[in-house]
Amino acid sequence: MESRTLAIEFGKRVRNKRKALGITQENLALLCKFDRTYGGIIERGEVNITLEKVYRLAAVLECDVTDLLP
Amino acid sequence: MESRTLAIEFGKRVRNKRKALGITQENLALLCKFDRTYGGIIERGEVNITLEKVYRLAAVLECDVTDLLP
Repeated sequence: MESRTLAIEFGKRVRNKRKALGITQENLALLCKFDRTYGGIIERGEVNITLEKVYRLAAVLECDVTDLLP
Repeated sequence: MESRTLAIEFGKRVRNKRKALGITQENLALLCKFDRTYGGIIERGEVNITLEKVYRLAAVLECDVTDLLP
């Protein structure tokens, strides 16, 4: 899968899970111990995220890592 | 999962898949278009790999991304 497509598809899944939990991008970032603006960056597919951050997101979003993967 | 533990467990899975295919670390890196030394770095769990590289590895190792995840 092309790198940017992957990031965008991943970001959509994060956004869906976050909205389902009813938390803001900023709170998601806070809970994941990311920089405050990083939630938006991820959801817009602007970053090639590291695997460790994928695991942190899944833990906070109360889902399996595989639920976030395109 | 702790970051270093994750990287080590991921690396072990990559190593097992690579050996099952009978290719060298260097050839794996070459096929993935990584730097020549990066195969060893991944397998020893010395890097927090990006999601895009995980997908490239899975493609070359002829497995599903989830097969590589701890």
